[in-house]
Amino acid sequence: MNSKYNLITEENIAHFCEILGSEKVKTQSEDLSFYGKDETEDLCFLPTCVLFPNTAEQISEIVKYCNGKLIPITVRGGGTGLAGGSLPVEGGVVLSMKNFDKILNIDEKNYQVTVEPGVITEVLQDTLKSKQLFYPPDPSSRGICFIGGNISTNAGGPKAVKYGVVKDYVLNLQVVTASGEIIWTGANTLKNSTGYNLTQLIVGSEGTLAIVCKIVLKVIPLPTHSFLMLIPFSSSKDACATVAKIFQKGVTPSALEFMERTAIDWATKYLQEEIIPMAPDVQAHLLVEVDGFDPEILMKDCEKISDVAIEMGCGEIYFADDEFQKLRLWKLRRNVAHAVKSQSIYKEEDTVVPRAFLPELLETVKAVGQIYGFESVCYGHAGDGNLHVNILKGELTQEQWTNEVPKGIREIFYKVKELGGTISGEHGIGWIQKPYMDIMFDPYHLSLFSSIKKVFDPNNILNPSKIVP
Amino acid sequence: MNSKYNLITEENIAHFCEILGSEKVKTQSEDLSFYGKDETEDLCFLPTCVLFPNTAEQISEIVKYCNGKLIPITVRGGGTGLAGGSLPVEGGVVLSMKNFDKILNIDEKNYQVTVEPGVITEVLQDTLKSKQLFYPPDPSSRGICFIGGNISTNAGGPKAVKYGVVKDYVLNLQVVTASGEIIWTGANTLKNSTGYNLTQLIVGSEGTLAIVCKIVLKVIPLPTHSFLMLIPFSSSKDACATVAKIFQKGVTPSALEFMERTAIDWATKYLQEEIIPMAPDVQAHLLVEVDGFDPEILMKDCEKISDVAIEMGCGEIYFADDEFQKLRLWKLRRNVAHAVKSQSIYKEEDTVVPRAFLPELLETVKAVGQIYGFESVCYGHAGDGNLHVNILKGELTQEQWTNEVPKGIREIFYKVKELGGTISGEHGIGWIQKPYMDIMFDPYHLSLFSSIKKVFDPNNILNPSKIVP
Repeated sequence: MNSKYNLITEENIAHFCEILGSEKVKTQSEDLSFYGKDETEDLCFLPTCVLFPNTAEQISEIVKYCNGKLIPITVRGGGTGLAGGSLPVEGGVVLSMKNFDKILNIDEKNYQVTVEPGVITEVLQDTLKSKQLFYPPDPSSRGICFIGGNISTNAGGPKAVKYGVVKDYVLNLQVVTASGEIIWTGANTLKNSTGYNLTQLIVGSEGTLAIVCKIVLKVIPLPTHSFLMLIPFSSSKDACATVAKIFQKGVTPSALEFMERTAIDWATKYLQEEIIPMAPDVQAHLLVEVDGFDPEILMKDCEKISDVAIEMGCGEIYFADDEFQKLRLWKLRRNVAHAVKSQSIYKEEDTVVPRAFLPELLETVKAVGQIYGFESVCYGHAGDGNLHVNILKGELTQEQWTNEVPKGIREIFYKVKELGGTISGEHGIGWIQKPYMDIMFDPYHLSLFSSIKKVFDPNNILNPSKIVP
Repeated sequence: MNSKYNLITEENIAHFCEILGSEKVKTQSEDLSFYGKDETEDLCFLPTCVLFPNTAEQISEIVKYCNGKLIPITVRGGGTGLAGGSLPVEGGVVLSMKNFDKILNIDEKNYQVTVEPGVITEVLQDTLKSKQLFYPPDPSSRGICFIGGNISTNAGGPKAVKYGVVKDYVLNLQVVTASGEIIWTGANTLKNSTGYNLTQLIVGSEGTLAIVCKIVLKVIPLPTHSFLMLIPFSSSKDACATVAKIFQKGVTPSALEFMERTAIDWATKYLQEEIIPMAPDVQAHLLVEVDGFDPEILMKDCEKISDVAIEMGCGEIYFADDEFQKLRLWKLRRNVAHAVKSQSIYKEEDTVVPRAFLPELLETVKAVGQIYGFESVCYGHAGDGNLHVNILKGELTQEQWTNEVPKGIREIFYKVKELGGTISGEHGIGWIQKPYMDIMFDPYHLSLFSSIKKVFDPNNILNPSKIVP
């Protein structure tokens, strides 16, 4: 822990109670230990207190006070992060956004919504669906993650391949900076060339620059039809190589997911339900969705996709044409992460490369695993070139886990960079990927990050010790 | 002129000649006067010399040298800016990017291209078209403007309504900062959650933060079919009100342009060619394009659009179904700016609001014009809510033009802000919109801009006196 920060005193707690009311200030050990963890490995860092504000003005007061007292503040969304972004690694205050849970305005005329950051992603999606509107970005954790957290990591999810990631939907943000100032970063417009793009600087900044209190999102018309195909391959590399070829046929699927066999095996076991029978030689699957407004066109797209897959030597394609079958396949895909977690402690690396280089990336992952003696389960948003590499602790010793595995990860990341890719596609850097930032950025580049951080947060109280090594 | 800068000496010129060769250093008065202007009103600011580098390393050497000597550098693309962004208002060096004119790589497998910033937008588009690829953003000036300039203002153009603006296509930038460091801002990937988004901070920063030397752009499959309709209205307000209603029918046109009658009258006169006959009661037109891969679907979209327009009381719709007719209509639209320029000195305001508020914006523009005694011609990308308000000098005295008109502009901009919009959608702030920045941003917000500028350019040598008042 950094000695520059002050420990929270009784007096500080009393002041927080004054601002929020004492029921919104938690210091009991079960709260501290709950808010000391997210979904990252088995890490835990205890805060001294957890605050539950529900207005930007309250946050402004809290931040101003903590800024003066040098008390660190870590903002927390749904707590589903995989890079430790919401872990209070320097102690201090955890600021939960769970009371910012209102959808403030659905502007159907302008295809915009205004929401608070504590709205659960799926709640927003469902509310919009009832009005034939669509907000595409949804991580696997959509049932519990917050829109604010999605913004903090610039989250993606399966639909990003056709519809883009969170940053493509954020028009304007109301934020509180470390000095307690409340500003709107932009305008509620589809285009904006008015000064530096602070909106996009805040998106993906993981709570290190400012605290998001209101969000204006673009939404789009809800597609009326979709088809889903599960395509087995006896070679993982062929499955990966099929990905870029689908796009080269002029088809843009609304989802294009890759799963190694192990991922499906484990998800099946985890769900205690065989969703799809697998031939013994199957090594990987592509899960491909197309969506739109005209089923005939979509059927033609499906034919093109099948043709490519068959050329690439796929097995028998499973075509899900009713809602029940589609939901089952998505349930399988969305539970892979839980399934892996239930098997072993693991490190999840969020590699991303230009999509045609996926086969080379996968080959590197497996070769490096052999050298360093670790097993990995790979799956992810192949259409985006985004491969989640889950490295299992399994039978590894603590020494191997702590000292050897990171060397292997470095080798994978060097390859990722060589391929024009980067070390996080949608999970963020947070706490656990920070030691690898030197692979992507030289010291000058990192100093630009630090200097930008200083502009917004000169005393380094907002989610300190994250992103920049 | 700011006294903190040093005037360029013979010795400085000699040093530039050493770096570039003397044929790439121009100091003759015709060069200085050419590079002292862009397309902004009738403004001219003379530089002392114009440099024509063609490598990032040369730019790095020049910038390092100028940074040490406190010599301002204004980067210049195609010189088609409408906000004075490329005017060397503090004198010094103009750095022309015209020799950075190479398309370096077209990666068809990954749907990416790498280009230099001096590539002309239309040249890139045409080259891509021959491979069935599409880079949508193209300002009216696409035949002469540079991709680098488009990045500097986060340009849009007519296709932005369906396909997004420049920022939505920029994946990665190689830039030189004021200290002469050469870095890549991101990765060549569709998703990226690795540190602060410097790529999007540079896009739209008008050459004030760094000099772009290489660009990786996303491209998409080229649509195979399009239809174009010109829809007349006897009320400009009804034309504007039709815009949001088209989207509410679930149709996303690939272009949705608004033109007041005067805009078409003047363009007709300028082109010396009657492209479309107009009934005497026509006050405005919408030019609506749909594109895609299936003509039947597009025809259905056209029907929906017609239905909405007829409900809103439009006149007889002109349907352009062959290439010749389409090109003629687009020629009309693309020449409106030239036509206005040929009529009178004018100020072009690049207002943008959520699209359903266009009727209110147009009404405000006309009402304010009546109060302050100026005429305006309005046209623009209505689908984005982006209305170009051209205020004509006409018979106004210099006193009215300099002192009264800006008061009217402020009133229009206050309304724009009230509607959730902003003062520039695609032209940038540059030199001439700077006095209005206080309308959009409070002093704290502006101080964030200044501090970010300082991070990249502590001595304020890169395009000084732009954007931030």
